[in-house]
Amino acid sequence: VICNVLCVGTELLLGQIDDTNSTYIGQQLVDAGITSYEHRRVGDNPERIEKALRDLLEVSDAIIVTGGLGPTHDDITREVTATVMGAELEHDSAVLENMKAIFARRNREMPQTNLRQAMVPKGATVIHNHLGTAPGLMCPVGDKTIYLVPGVPHEMYPMVTDTIIPDILSRGKATAIVTRTIKTWGISESSLAEQLDAFVQAGETSDVKVGFLARGMNGIYVKLSASADTKEQARAIIAPVEHEVLAVLGEAAYGFDDDTMESIVIDLLKKQGKTIAIAESLTGGMLSSRLVDVPGSSDVHMGGVVSYTKAVKHDVLGVQVRDVYSNECAEQMAQGVAKHLGSDIGLSTTGVAGPDEDNGHPPGEVFIGISTATDTIAQRFLLGGDRKRVREYTTITAFDFLRRYLSSFNLD
Amino acid sequence: VICNVLCVGTELLLGQIDDTNSTYIGQQLVDAGITSYEHRRVGDNPERIEKALRDLLEVSDAIIVTGGLGPTHDDITREVTATVMGAELEHDSAVLENMKAIFARRNREMPQTNLRQAMVPKGATVIHNHLGTAPGLMCPVGDKTIYLVPGVPHEMYPMVTDTIIPDILSRGKATAIVTRTIKTWGISESSLAEQLDAFVQAGETSDVKVGFLARGMNGIYVKLSASADTKEQARAIIAPVEHEVLAVLGEAAYGFDDDTMESIVIDLLKKQGKTIAIAESLTGGMLSSRLVDVPGSSDVHMGGVVSYTKAVKHDVLGVQVRDVYSNECAEQMAQGVAKHLGSDIGLSTTGVAGPDEDNGHPPGEVFIGISTATDTIAQRFLLGGDRKRVREYTTITAFDFLRRYLSSFNLD
Repeated sequence: VICNVLCVGTELLLGQIDDTNSTYIGQQLVDAGITSYEHRRVGDNPERIEKALRDLLEVSDAIIVTGGLGPTHDDITREVTATVMGAELEHDSAVLENMKAIFARRNREMPQTNLRQAMVPKGATVIHNHLGTAPGLMCPVGDKTIYLVPGVPHEMYPMVTDTIIPDILSRGKATAIVTRTIKTWGISESSLAEQLDAFVQAGETSDVKVGFLARGMNGIYVKLSASADTKEQARAIIAPVEHEVLAVLGEAAYGFDDDTMESIVIDLLKKQGKTIAIAESLTGGMLSSRLVDVPGSSDVHMGGVVSYTKAVKHDVLGVQVRDVYSNECAEQMAQGVAKHLGSDIGLSTTGVAGPDEDNGHPPGEVFIGISTATDTIAQRFLLGGDRKRVREYTTITAFDFLRRYLSSFNLD
Repeated sequence: VICNVLCVGTELLLGQIDDTNSTYIGQQLVDAGITSYEHRRVGDNPERIEKALRDLLEVSDAIIVTGGLGPTHDDITREVTATVMGAELEHDSAVLENMKAIFARRNREMPQTNLRQAMVPKGATVIHNHLGTAPGLMCPVGDKTIYLVPGVPHEMYPMVTDTIIPDILSRGKATAIVTRTIKTWGISESSLAEQLDAFVQAGETSDVKVGFLARGMNGIYVKLSASADTKEQARAIIAPVEHEVLAVLGEAAYGFDDDTMESIVIDLLKKQGKTIAIAESLTGGMLSSRLVDVPGSSDVHMGGVVSYTKAVKHDVLGVQVRDVYSNECAEQMAQGVAKHLGSDIGLSTTGVAGPDEDNGHPPGEVFIGISTATDTIAQRFLLGGDRKRVREYTTITAFDFLRRYLSSFNLD
């Protein structure tokens, strides 16, 4: 089965937003073993949308189209698709009810313009949208299908994953492609490439391809992929290579696939029955916020103090040392927040986010502290990048520092 | 002049990396007044690259092609373009010298595979690459041009900006396009569309186009754009329409162009000489972290307390009320954090992030509090979306609540 992708929206052509939708759809297709040869982007223009649909229908079994399903009159994907189908648009009362329910939940009047979103091409099947007003639509064209989904990512994701991928799979045989992602932190991408060069070279001629993907504050991913008739076979091909790669990576491998650094840290804390509180200077709440992202984190994450100013470090956290860019400050912040919030463990960040140096300390010089009932440690790191990047790298570096500490602690 | 974009790389189709290159190129083209109708992505496959090039040549004056210029044998953009040009590949000694210099600088031997990168289609002009081994190439095809650039962003950027855009502009008349972005919060996208419908309709036949862009926790943007012979003329065309649109939007318009909700709030605080501290429950540090993103925010942002648990709300912030999902709790949190950190203003968030309801309170029910020396207020909001979205919407809603409060406060 070949499924290609069309993203509709003038804002994409103008570079006003990154097209992350086709990235997501590409990942879902490859995970399902569905081939994709081409992704296109066109603006909100009826002739060009129609031409793209007709072109892609010639080389695809299915097309996933994102965007242009909104209530405003430049949202014309529905109408153009109906033209390509040779079908009329019909009013769909179930879609209308869903829209009314959404507006009612928000205590708001439904504007008349939204009525357009209840128009469905005759012969199309509705994919209900519980998160927004634009329904997804499965539109048959001969033995092929055009799938229309909203451009809003969190509305689009479940439609693709839960409805469209299974529908495409029901139409033809797929090759099973399995990708295993090993997530790492602490080794640069070029060092990883060098250390794993033998595996990359072997992958050129063998079944297990090895690739790298730098994902900012989520670390660097090592991706092993293989294809076979079944997922089980593909997994069996990957397993021995994964084993060898993990031996090379050692402690730098922090998790797999859907793991995040935060989920790993929360799991370690839960296993050891320890609570945590966080004192943040340059990260300004980013660590706490990432932990709150993990469902169930409130079992171990008590909260924290954002001590962005020296006064708060001193008055609230009891920091005594004068130099806020020091291991001593990080230690006292970690001790202070654990005491102040009554947690077992304190974790702290302080340092220079940049863009300028401060009192002779360069941007990217950060100090991370850990305090427990019996132990207080801190370490200095030099991180690269602009202000945003330094703050993000500090976040993952701090979690990684705690992960390595808890892992060895647990072994004692 | 019409310039379309082709991105080559199987990793793009597989969703292994986001395609930010075409975002960048789209921005550069629109800034230069060059029209772009279509962006395509294909894998490292000779037939499909060739078909895409031939298709796009029919509807373009110029094509910018990124990717597939590397040294490995799946990098075939150069060869396929030579085929489309009907030209032979020739060895280019200047390119070879540049590659040798780069390897020498890195103290590494140049692998034989890199020699391929010194092959240039006869008739093409080289764009030298000082940052990497793959040169850019300007390849004439009749009176049209295919521009090849590397997929590595920082190597590609200067080639596009310094060489390719001026080259395209030298071939045809460009139009100056100006876009003015009005950033809003508090009106849904469909209501905005309804309230501004007259402007949207007028834009169909007049010079100022009106569009909308939902940007999550940055709000909803109203975009006014106009084209003219010069940027000044385009700005003059937009100005009266902008004036009228602002009158309709009223308080919902929080800023323009590069403003963010955080930068506006920081500016208001600076103007009024007030400091702030933030108490966060469901947002877990997101508000504080967004404020730290604004350079110079430390003048007014003292920090905050993440009181994710009831115990921290009570012990650290002095919250007395039992129901943490209430206006009273938000008020006491705001008072507590201002007192605890010694700030002029306290801002607080509490509520249900979801995905599940809690004690009869639905996901998305949030309470935001503001406390000053003379005044304490709170308000309940019902926000839509999943857990992540609720937390992000709470963040912008809280800043917006404070912005409106400070704006009216200032008028007294």
